[in-house]
Amino acid sequence: MRLYSMPSSGNSYKVRLLLALLGRDCEIVDCEHGSVAKEDARATGALPFGKLPALHLNDGRRIAESNAILCFLGEGTRFWPADPVTRAQMLAWLFWEQYNHEPAIAVRAALRNYPHRAADATPARLADLLDRGHTHLQTMEDRLAAHDWLAGEAISLADLCLYAYTHSAGVLGGFEMARFPAINDWLARVAAQPGYKGLND
Amino acid sequence: MRLYSMPSSGNSYKVRLLLALLGRDCEIVDCEHGSVAKEDARATGALPFGKLPALHLNDGRRIAESNAILCFLGEGTRFWPADPVTRAQMLAWLFWEQYNHEPAIAVRAALRNYPHRAADATPARLADLLDRGHTHLQTMEDRLAAHDWLAGEAISLADLCLYAYTHSAGVLGGFEMARFPAINDWLARVAAQPGYKGLND
Repeated sequence: MRLYSMPSSGNSYKVRLLLALLGRDCEIVDCEHGSVAKEDARATGALPFGKLPALHLNDGRRIAESNAILCFLGEGTRFWPADPVTRAQMLAWLFWEQYNHEPAIAVRAALRNYPHRAADATPARLADLLDRGHTHLQTMEDRLAAHDWLAGEAISLADLCLYAYTHSAGVLGGFEMARFPAINDWLARVAAQPGYKGLND
Repeated sequence: MRLYSMPSSGNSYKVRLLLALLGRDCEIVDCEHGSVAKEDARATGALPFGKLPALHLNDGRRIAESNAILCFLGEGTRFWPADPVTRAQMLAWLFWEQYNHEPAIAVRAALRNYPHRAADATPARLADLLDRGHTHLQTMEDRLAAHDWLAGEAISLADLCLYAYTHSAGVLGGFEMARFPAINDWLARVAAQPGYKGLND
């Protein structure tokens, strides 16, 4: 297996985190934004949908979309709920992450930190993303105030998926994480998992 | 089972379409935008994430997110690929739909057709969404020019998911569908499935 991965991206990190927790070997091709490697990967069609991450299997087949890769690698492991309803609730968090959480929380971090995004980082846009991001964090806080994990009562792909951009939402995104004590406790529970690796590990 | 469904929404329609193709009974609670029913559903906590559609099971558990509901209802049926890689590729289309396709194609249709969205329908925004939507439709066209279906070689949840907002992209969204002959052939293949129901059926 070969993973085309953007080192600074939470979408890529969530896959590297799952691989680390599972103790699975995988060739990693670093494709940072603006790098020759990323342009080469895109030009040669290595990236379905033109996006990172992308997983290439040994038989040549390719899987796009970070959360689809999580499902492919995670099915049948301890991160995959056996109960069909819990599994669907886990998937609901994954879709919510892509539709609601990522476009506010990851995008605000990107606008503040990537030089090529600076032109879009207007005060009005940053303020709007701050409000939306806090709303989404409150949705997680409400769940985590009553449960240790997002779906069901055990860690699942939902927690790894949401961890990726939430754990850096304060430092990179400027969100007020002190308002969300249950999220902070949950972040510590994820980071305590055997085999855990940080974004830059 | 009870489905809280917004009649005019593609996200709700995709679930109703799957139920029809599977011949499954389900109580449908219509919650159009601005209706008392929708406000009641939201106020009583019937909608996880505050969004439609939402599926309530007989044991009281609830599943949010249209594409998670598709997976819950579709697992083990003919719309669920048996091969794990094809299944992951199907899921990739579902995540891509929520992150890329829906925010351009469904949002442009909403801005043009819902009175409460008219204030956001500036010429610049509509033009940007038109460009982005055509790019996403071209991604589908490229796949469908070489294959009958989006994931693998048989119809799957990916086709039902993408059908919902693509089939009305011309009439409601103002996209130039004549540019996409393979999509138009594929739309006809979906509509020819036994048990098919249209958005307003």
